[in-house]
Amino acid sequence: MTQQHLLYEGKAKRVYRTEHPDQYIVSYKDDATAFNGEKKATILGKGELNNRISTIFFKLLNGQGIPTHFIERLSDREQLVKKVTIIPLEVVVRNIAAGSLAKRLGMAEGTQLRQAVIEFYYKNDALGDPLVNDSHIALLELATPEQLQQIQGIARKINDILQAYLLEREVVLVDFKLEFGIDTAGSILLADEISPDTCRFWDAKTQEKLDKDRFRRDLGGVEDAYKEILRRLGGEQA
Amino acid sequence: MTQQHLLYEGKAKRVYRTEHPDQYIVSYKDDATAFNGEKKATILGKGELNNRISTIFFKLLNGQGIPTHFIERLSDREQLVKKVTIIPLEVVVRNIAAGSLAKRLGMAEGTQLRQAVIEFYYKNDALGDPLVNDSHIALLELATPEQLQQIQGIARKINDILQAYLLEREVVLVDFKLEFGIDTAGSILLADEISPDTCRFWDAKTQEKLDKDRFRRDLGGVEDAYKEILRRLGGEQA
Ligand SMILES: Nc1ncnc2c1ncn2[C@@H]1O[C@H](COP(=O)(O)OP(=O)(O)OP(=O)(O)O)[C@@H](O)[C@H]1O
Ligand SMILES: Nc1ncnc2c1ncn2[C@@H]1O[C@H](COP(=O)(O)OP(=O)(O)OP(=O)(O)O)[C@@H](O)[C@H]1O
Ligand SMILES: [Mg+2]
Ligand SMILES: [Mg+2]
Repeated sequence: MTQQHLLYEGKAKRVYRTEHPDQYIVSYKDDATAFNGEKKATILGKGELNNRISTIFFKLLNGQGIPTHFIERLSDREQLVKKVTIIPLEVVVRNIAAGSLAKRLGMAEGTQLRQAVIEFYYKNDALGDPLVNDSHIALLELATPEQLQQIQGIARKINDILQAYLLEREVVLVDFKLEFGIDTAGSILLADEISPDTCRFWDAKTQEKLDKDRFRRDLGGVEDAYKEILRRLGGEQA
Repeated sequence: MTQQHLLYEGKAKRVYRTEHPDQYIVSYKDDATAFNGEKKATILGKGELNNRISTIFFKLLNGQGIPTHFIERLSDREQLVKKVTIIPLEVVVRNIAAGSLAKRLGMAEGTQLRQAVIEFYYKNDALGDPLVNDSHIALLELATPEQLQQIQGIARKINDILQAYLLEREVVLVDFKLEFGIDTAGSILLADEISPDTCRFWDAKTQEKLDKDRFRRDLGGVEDAYKEILRRLGGEQA
């Protein structure tokens, strides 16, 4: 399976066509952006680390019956995935108040939420990825009510699986962003990536941030934090 | 029934206790505010006009089986209402894109929506009344899922009734904000007011704004617009 044609270059990954019409290659870049692309940098080694970390999570989820786009890791930066049509929603699951939720609801960052919060953001850079509710999604025909229900159910299951898995490794899953797509057979699959770029991970003992917030907030040690996450997940062998 | 004790002075109304433990008097003020209280003015006659307009709408809705807090208009500025515990949500129903929806979804103001949009905003001035979804509402325990369902159903019925009623009077109902409360018997009632302060009304022929946007956007003729709405609704006799 070789890269053939660059289909899309995003902020963190490139997507290539392959010889197989139903499969893409995703290549993880070292580029990091924040605040809707306003802040930019290169974090050496990030692409490789996120490819490995994402691979571990996708394998875990595939093994637990969650339908994902992941087929296999091909190389340091590359994954073979099932081609999907991305549903233009960022699905955010939250266990602890942080970031925009802390601001929106006036909660102190770090407040444990009594129940997981699920949010949908419209993937639209020009609009700044606004929060949307079910009736906005229906109006824009971004997903059917049935698809939304299904996505929420899968997102909650993923949260349960990842929370338990990470806690055993002394990592608290604060929140994370998922993207879903429809494959060529019409099924909903988890797509995109699961990595410190798209999750908030805190050390369970020290509350130290082990994720992209180190970059967003200029805390330093970004690469080391990503390495630490990979180490806790069982390291290089993924 | 006489005013006894000022319970609450809001931006647009005062609420008084009465001799009856289950009833309040609401008194409509001439004060107008916009942008979360940043812009302020007095619009002479507004209180009287909104009291009359609101009375017409509440009578219409009561007559169509919508449970509302309205009992009767007592005087130029005053209404007798059922006491409720306000659910701290602003329930917004939209038929045409305007204001924050136009901004959020990048739609031109005036775009007809294929289906009504319903939004919930958390009534919290310090947070700027943020948009919230079902899971935020559940987390903050602002309403139960059953109450939310019931409120959405009532809001859609109100929209149907008001849209039809207004269109006969050559007024387009662009959007409006409702507040609901729980009465002493535990039932959900429509409360607060329905007026040009809380609705967007456009002239059906000219698209002229006949509502608080004239104040928000410094278009002038605020009082005349409110008078015109009252005139179209059948005037003084309410
Ligand atoms: N299996 C898949 N099939 C098709 N597209 C996918 C798949 N998985 C992820 N994508 C898409 O590939 C792109 C990945 O690139 P990247 O994450 O760098 O994008 P981005 O800069 O975040 O921009 P955006 O997500 O807004 O397009 C995203 O658009 C993502 O939605
Ligand atoms: N039947 C009712 N029983 C109790 N309170 C009511 C009733 N109807 C309306 N209210 C409340 O009375 C107040 C009306 O005052 P006003 O509309 O001026 O408030 P406001 O300045 O908009 O502020 P806020 O709505 O944020 O409190 C509101 O708080 C409203 O929720
Ligand atoms: Mg991305
Ligand atoms: Mg009010």
